[in-house]
Amino acid sequence: QPHPKPPSASFHPPTSSVFTPLDTFLPRHLGPRNSDVEQMLSVLGYKSLDDFVADTIPQGVRVDELSDDPTNGLRPYSELELSRRVDEVAGMNKPMKSYIGMGYHNAIVPPVIQRNILENPAWYTAYTPYSPEQSQGRLESLINFQTVAISLTGLPIANASLLDEATAAAEGMAMCLASVPKPTFNKGKKVFLVSPSVAPQTIAVLQTRADGFGITLKVAESDATFVKEVETLGQAQLMGAMVQYPDVNGDIRDWEGVTAAVKAVGGKMVVASDLLALTMLKPPGEWGADIVCGNSQRFGVPAGYGGPHAAFFACTDEMKRKMPGRLVGLSKGARGEPAYRLALQTREQHIRREKATSNVCTAQALLANMAAMYAVYHGPEGLKRIAGKVHSLARVLAKSLDNLGFKIVNSSYFDTLTIDVSSAGLSADQVHSTSTKVGINFRHISPTTIGITLDESVGPLDLTDIVNVFYAALTKPLIQPESLEELSKELSMNSNSVSEPSQSLGKLTRTSRFLQQSVFNKHHSETDMLRYMMHLQEKDYSLVHGMIPLGSCTMKLNSTSSMVPISSKEFGGVHPFAPIDQAKGYKQLFTELERDLSLVTGYDATSLQPNSGASGEYAGLKVIQAYHQSKGEGHRNVCLIPLSAHGTNPASAAMVSYKVVPIKALVDGSLDLNDLKEKAEKHKDELAAFMVTYPSTFGVFEEGIEEACRIVHENGGQVYVDGANCNSLVGLTSLGRVGGDVSHTNLHKTFSIPHGGGGPGVGPISCKSHLSPFLPSHPLIPTGGSTPISAVSAAPWGSASINLISWAYIKMLGGSGLTNVSKIALLNANYIAERLRPYYNIRFTNKNKRVAHELLIDLGEFEKSVGLKVSDFSKRLQDYSFHPPTAQWPISTCWLIEPTESEPKHELDRFIDALISIRKEVDEIASGKYTQDDNVFKHAPHPLEVLTDAEWTRPYSREKAVFPVPTLRKSKFWPSVSRVDDAAGDLNLICECGTTEDYA
Amino acid sequence: QPHPKPPSASFHPPTSSVFTPLDTFLPRHLGPRNSDVEQMLSVLGYKSLDDFVADTIPQGVRVDELSDDPTNGLRPYSELELSRRVDEVAGMNKPMKSYIGMGYHNAIVPPVIQRNILENPAWYTAYTPYSPEQSQGRLESLINFQTVAISLTGLPIANASLLDEATAAAEGMAMCLASVPKPTFNKGKKVFLVSPSVAPQTIAVLQTRADGFGITLKVAESDATFVKEVETLGQAQLMGAMVQYPDVNGDIRDWEGVTAAVKAVGGKMVVASDLLALTMLKPPGEWGADIVCGNSQRFGVPAGYGGPHAAFFACTDEMKRKMPGRLVGLSKGARGEPAYRLALQTREQHIRREKATSNVCTAQALLANMAAMYAVYHGPEGLKRIAGKVHSLARVLAKSLDNLGFKIVNSSYFDTLTIDVSSAGLSADQVHSTSTKVGINFRHISPTTIGITLDESVGPLDLTDIVNVFYAALTKPLIQPESLEELSKELSMNSNSVSEPSQSLGKLTRTSRFLQQSVFNKHHSETDMLRYMMHLQEKDYSLVHGMIPLGSCTMKLNSTSSMVPISSKEFGGVHPFAPIDQAKGYKQLFTELERDLSLVTGYDATSLQPNSGASGEYAGLKVIQAYHQSKGEGHRNVCLIPLSAHGTNPASAAMVSYKVVPIKALVDGSLDLNDLKEKAEKHKDELAAFMVTYPSTFGVFEEGIEEACRIVHENGGQVYVDGANCNSLVGLTSLGRVGGDVSHTNLHKTFSIPHGGGGPGVGPISCKSHLSPFLPSHPLIPTGGSTPISAVSAAPWGSASINLISWAYIKMLGGSGLTNVSKIALLNANYIAERLRPYYNIRFTNKNKRVAHELLIDLGEFEKSVGLKVSDFSKRLQDYSFHPPTAQWPISTCWLIEPTESEPKHELDRFIDALISIRKEVDEIASGKYTQDDNVFKHAPHPLEVLTDAEWTRPYSREKAVFPVPTLRKSKFWPSVSRVDDAAGDLNLICECGTTEDYA
Ligand SMILES: Cc1ncc(COP(=O)(O)O)c(C=O)c1O
Ligand SMILES: Cc1ncc(COP(=O)(O)O)c(C=O)c1O
Ligand SMILES: O=C([O-])O
Repeated sequence: QPHPKPPSASFHPPTSSVFTPLDTFLPRHLGPRNSDVEQMLSVLGYKSLDDFVADTIPQGVRVDELSDDPTNGLRPYSELELSRRVDEVAGMNKPMKSYIGMGYHNAIVPPVIQRNILENPAWYTAYTPYSPEQSQGRLESLINFQTVAISLTGLPIANASLLDEATAAAEGMAMCLASVPKPTFNKGKKVFLVSPSVAPQTIAVLQTRADGFGITLKVAESDATFVKEVETLGQAQLMGAMVQYPDVNGDIRDWEGVTAAVKAVGGKMVVASDLLALTMLKPPGEWGADIVCGNSQRFGVPAGYGGPHAAFFACTDEMKRKMPGRLVGLSKGARGEPAYRLALQTREQHIRREKATSNVCTAQALLANMAAMYAVYHGPEGLKRIAGKVHSLARVLAKSLDNLGFKIVNSSYFDTLTIDVSSAGLSADQVHSTSTKVGINFRHISPTTIGITLDESVGPLDLTDIVNVFYAALTKPLIQPESLEELSKELSMNSNSVSEPSQSLGKLTRTSRFLQQSVFNKHHSETDMLRYMMHLQEKDYSLVHGMIPLGSCTMKLNSTSSMVPISSKEFGGVHPFAPIDQAKGYKQLFTELERDLSLVTGYDATSLQPNSGASGEYAGLKVIQAYHQSKGEGHRNVCLIPLSAHGTNPASAAMVSYKVVPIKALVDGSLDLNDLKEKAEKHKDELAAFMVTYPSTFGVFEEGIEEACRIVHENGGQVYVDGANCNSLVGLTSLGRVGGDVSHTNLHKTFSIPHGGGGPGVGPISCKSHLSPFLPSHPLIPTGGSTPISAVSAAPWGSASINLISWAYIKMLGGSGLTNVSKIALLNANYIAERLRPYYNIRFTNKNKRVAHELLIDLGEFEKSVGLKVSDFSKRLQDYSFHPPTAQWPISTCWLIEPTESEPKHELDRFIDALISIRKEVDEIASGKYTQDDNVFKHAPHPLEVLTDAEWTRPYSREKAVFPVPTLRKSKFWPSVSRVDDAAGDLNLICECGTTEDYA
Repeated sequence: QPHPKPPSASFHPPTSSVFTPLDTFLPRHLGPRNSDVEQMLSVLGYKSLDDFVADTIPQGVRVDELSDDPTNGLRPYSELELSRRVDEVAGMNKPMKSYIGMGYHNAIVPPVIQRNILENPAWYTAYTPYSPEQSQGRLESLINFQTVAISLTGLPIANASLLDEATAAAEGMAMCLASVPKPTFNKGKKVFLVSPSVAPQTIAVLQTRADGFGITLKVAESDATFVKEVETLGQAQLMGAMVQYPDVNGDIRDWEGVTAAVKAVGGKMVVASDLLALTMLKPPGEWGADIVCGNSQRFGVPAGYGGPHAAFFACTDEMKRKMPGRLVGLSKGARGEPAYRLALQTREQHIRREKATSNVCTAQALLANMAAMYAVYHGPEGLKRIAGKVHSLARVLAKSLDNLGFKIVNSSYFDTLTIDVSSAGLSADQVHSTSTKVGINFRHISPTTIGITLDESVGPLDLTDIVNVFYAALTKPLIQPESLEELSKELSMNSNSVSEPSQSLGKLTRTSRFLQQSVFNKHHSETDMLRYMMHLQEKDYSLVHGMIPLGSCTMKLNSTSSMVPISSKEFGGVHPFAPIDQAKGYKQLFTELERDLSLVTGYDATSLQPNSGASGEYAGLKVIQAYHQSKGEGHRNVCLIPLSAHGTNPASAAMVSYKVVPIKALVDGSLDLNDLKEKAEKHKDELAAFMVTYPSTFGVFEEGIEEACRIVHENGGQVYVDGANCNSLVGLTSLGRVGGDVSHTNLHKTFSIPHGGGGPGVGPISCKSHLSPFLPSHPLIPTGGSTPISAVSAAPWGSASINLISWAYIKMLGGSGLTNVSKIALLNANYIAERLRPYYNIRFTNKNKRVAHELLIDLGEFEKSVGLKVSDFSKRLQDYSFHPPTAQWPISTCWLIEPTESEPKHELDRFIDALISIRKEVDEIASGKYTQDDNVFKHAPHPLEVLTDAEWTRPYSREKAVFPVPTLRKSKFWPSVSRVDDAAGDLNLICECGTTEDYA
């Protein structure tokens, strides 16, 4: 009897077949049903979707619609097929236990946090907390994160996360530069001295970043000569320095003298550090550091092959106004209640356009929340116990190796040993090949030295395995865990010693207390922890409640099918610097995603390294710069940017030292091609690049896009098309087709990675073949082109693990699905525009009265007529149970509204009805029924607490305040505080949680 | 170089070691911190926890505390160790693809439902919706479930789920009996005729259940002779009949004539059916069925090796008042708004004690919700497409097999083929051994016949694999999927044919529409679905909000660590009748859990088959009955039961035809031993059993328990100790130790399985060795003792997959952890009692003023003094953001309060403060400040809508209504409707969702 072998796995039934899967993704992803689409088209006056699209996107730039052709890899997978494919790809990863360290650890994710934050759409589908009355939950959690950073580093101010440790260090370096007084600066005080024991990926990113700022990055000869080098550079040259504590090789140096020396010559000190180690170590803030940053990943976030994780970043009070990223502060609501909000900046202000030293925007909020919750769950005592245990195990390991005759190179350590294996007659290769056999990765340092970093996950059996690698390499009989237990007793250790400070740290032992605030000392049972997270969750509006019509943010459905894989062990458990043959699943995934993204954007090659849109812009400009250099035109440094551009564009240009030349817009919102031509020709010899957003930030398909690109090319420039928001064009046209040379796309917008309350994000860049040799490399794992720029992120593939989501999204939609998504995104936006036209001023449309996937509504007239500002409208819309649209950007009197394809028609109608009702409320002021000062807008939003006021002194009823339309009685999301006062909070900045803070 | 082999995996460091894990479960599970425990003890006047326990549990029955001795299997696992162990055990299961059918299918669980219901603590930690104002979400979902059953079966009434198809059928049989008019009944109209093509596990459970009711269960000779047999039995004997549609072998018979014949002789017709098939088939309600039941598992619930899944159950209007289980109905709130609640019954009423024909209590709410949501997500058109496709694939399979010369035994079919393989010269064994080689299970029917059931998960490759088993068995060259695609075209199939009714079903084709209600036609995008589930979730109070102090329900933490494994494929994907060598992981798990439960309860053997506490009681009494029979004392039929017993006790006794003799209690709440002695002696010759709850339902450790057991034993009876609520005694004493012969424990209480909003549950029975030979068997997979009773559940191990939770709970706590849990459960209850003593009448305590793990508060005095009923207190407590305690049971004027060990002290204090505040509100009525009719109690609860009333006509303020204590301003769970009117709803019973029903 023959064994029935499996049939060919590549059979894909035609869509007409009875075998076609039913669990297809497209109809689940799209909001409007087919019958809705018909109705909406008829409102717009079209017979077919294609007629509508033809009126919306200029024919000239249309491409053949993407098809489901299996040969282009874009055959759609059903949800079940996708899940099977994920299992297959996951199975290709063979994660070994990694003790490589270098900022990445095996984390224990507390299951209650994993399930209720990482795997909870109420947390991951939220946006950056720009609407504070609807975001008090995650604002509180982010302030907890800031408090962790403040408390552990010993510095007074911390932000709500940065992208990774290396870019955080680069931000620190830029802040040092920005702190140099102008006169001195101009005289060339521009050297930044880095300790050679800073992690290599950090040094690589510093190197990349230094160039653009005109900083001379100098790696010190050695830590021993550091002070001397500081003195040599002196007041004239040194603007800052950076050290790592503990350093990448594990050593814990006393940097106090060095810090003093740096300061003595007017420099600032940046320190990379480790939160867990800081529970035992004297905090850098206590020995003079100006900035402390690092990775918070080991606080309960999976390694995920490099990301996403939240970098923490703290600085002195003096430097706070130069701090990049988002900062949560405490302010108060209109009723006097405490209320959190983003402080010292709004989205647009903190990106200071061409004056910026940072372009960071999307950060790592979700992961910062996980890390903060980890600290809440463990509390200071729990963290100390964990740190103490990790350190104790490192001591047991050191002792075992010492007994075997191995020399430990670092004289002090927390969790990391650098071992000179030649001292026992071995080569590093011998040790590595032995360890690989038992599924263990050590750090490769040199032919004679290896590194081992322990972590919270290490148990007695794991440690025995580690030690036995050395016994085996020496061909000695293996030991049992009991011997290590014996050894720990010889070292006078017991379960108590894990909570005592280690003597071995000497005068660097931490004496100051940390995390004494009640929030870190209360929620230590799982029940309590769960309730705390739920208590916060219930204050936050997210996609689980309704539409988030934030223009330029693309708040679309993040399908569960695509979210499930990211929390699997096979993807979560891989160290970013593990040998690549252990990560073949990832490799496969990246290859497919890069190919798909290149195809979809109309380019030839893609790099996944940039871990945000802004980081993509920066990388893309770097690539352009390298290209010009390769042609001997490295002097080109003018970058043309329309005035309407997103703030990150000029900021990114500034960061590569490009001179920004603004381009005007015409009254109809389109690019002023004459102005462009004039400027391009004027700067012909220095023209480096043109950065343009397509469709434009005004929500229209620029008719002159091709012409514009032609002009730039003719004048020697390269075209950077900002594709952050390309949800309207996938499959219909492409960024390459319209004339771009390089673009980033925001996978956290168009490609369905959730926003996570302000990150993570992925901003891959795709480019034409002439630029592909310059795609970014990485110092540890080869990536990028043949003559690459240096790294832009700490990890080779940036926020590696979340690429799974976009990969799955593309796989499940396939070519025709992607194209359909664009069409419905256009339809949803145009349906809103059409229905609102009688009531509001739609600022820009194309000649057919069509907008792209978003629309600008100009509310300026109402400020004049009835004294209502855009923010009054935004606050009032909350009372209708909506998150407000993007406000005052890109035009200060406007709302920018983007519904996305995944909003159902009934939700669009609810939104339209709310806006019509609000328009009537405006009329009530115009007609004199209510005054300009005392009306539903000025007191909005109305949290439910106002209803309990015994006396009601408002001119409108309680019901009108909170239930302006009757459906709200059935379902309403309530703001949890009254209107938040930004000024009050900025005046008196409080960015850590209070010691007596409490929740009921 | 030797390969470094792994060290011994059995190393367990002593707790004093530095290697002891830090992620231990006990401190996460317990609410109070160590410092809280000290404070609480000092309130109670004790120096140590042990002194306190000594005063609480009678010394006489104490056992040696459970230890962590690894030899007894009770060494505690850390959370990480547990997760590794789970992976290990999961890896021992080798699930093959099963096409066994028989009521269990490979389901596709929509990921959005899996993540947001099955894996969401807000859904799974809720209780049965007894507090309707705080439970409108899941009440709505359950009414959706009822609507699915009503609409698909064609009957007007359906309940909110039963335990499984087999017990549902048994409930149906009992209803038939109960419908027989008394005179006829007494004349012996007691025969129930069952078609032989009903599933064997159903027949087995019917058999078990028939005995107790004195029913003669007769399996018809054949379906062909069914009518004749009906006629032969005739009016005098036949009380009901049962058929399956489609039957277990796949055949779809026209039962209309048979049904008419049954009715002609005054019998009722019970039909087992399949929801998916009913989308295509004429519903039984249209051809005369009185009752239709079945398994809803294939509506998106994992097979889970047999459960948990929800059985659906529908009946005629005439029979509705005999329907067992919970029924959700529509009523209205005090403000006139529509409001759902449990109809026609309260917890106590629907269990009609000794007059009961059913003891069902906990059902399968969580799984019913999943199935309902599956129907919401797919809608009628989606369900039709799925059914159409499954049926089409079955036709392709039939055609392929026919082409190969195999005879299909069943002439009609929906998804199941019975194949006579001898027709092509093969034996069934040949086919099975071939299929096993490629990882496929078919149904074993006979040496010449096999069964194949297709389902939603079958794709073209799967079907090709199936067909190739036959090609291989015939040693023919294998086919490719393309051939099946060809075949489907020959059958004129295409993707449209899956939504057309199949001609092959002839006059049994369904013509009536179903699920036309808007809820089933609206939420078909994932965004919509997610929002609908969240919209419902936000109306429901669960453990994520705060304490649920329901006495006798043990609402404790269900840890994420223990919940995670149940949704894994390795556990979810196993068919209950798959060859047991594919389920070695399960086997290991059951062996360990049975051993642990036996140890902990003080017994010798355990059966996991009963899938609820009540089902355990029934099984335990059956075992006692079998034991008496084995000793020739089968006539013993008196069961002594204290009056205070849970309603299920007398109901279970009635179901085994025991005569219930009540035993009185003394004024101090203790058992009247004299009364017991008198009755035991009086019934000496017929004494079968004594059922007693320990600790008593009054919340005290019965001092006379040992004496009581002795009396019963002396008089020839066996002792059934109801251990549903043994959360106070694990590790301190045991059910066996106090004198029990057999007990059930509710794993969904003491052992941490979440309540799921009213199920699932597991009610294993443990017994002494003399009873173990009688533990229940199963017709398909051997289980139980050497001379077992027949099956009590459809699946061999009942709700198999959720046993994982209790297994993990025990593993993570270990012996000393389990014991500590009991101590803290006692402490929490006694702390509440002590602090409330000055304000309320604590009804019963032991002689040291201690209660067990729950306490009775008597509110009777307030009805007399100020006209407040227990329900007024319960409603008012909602305004304080609590779920009310168990009310009016076991004493009608009382609250029964159980905090469990996992409530933190600050939550206990919040509860105590609320009760003290409420006591003051009582005084305000007593003092005349408010009248007896118009006060905060009578209008409670206050949903937030009342606050929008423009006119406030109440004598108390808005603030007093909703924020009686200030902390509520920070955090409050709001009831979503005003007080629900039970009477209005019962008068005008509506138990399906309306066609115009809508949500905003
Ligand atoms: C047009 C445009 N470009 C760039 C960005 C920057 O992307 P990110 O926030 O991921 O850095 C955004 C996002 O806000 C954007 O809208
Ligand atoms: C004392 C007692 N016995 C039996 C039961 C019945 O358990 P179940 O609801 O699981 O059928 C309960 C639960 O309510 C109970 O409290
Ligand atoms: O229903 C009960 O859990 O008692």
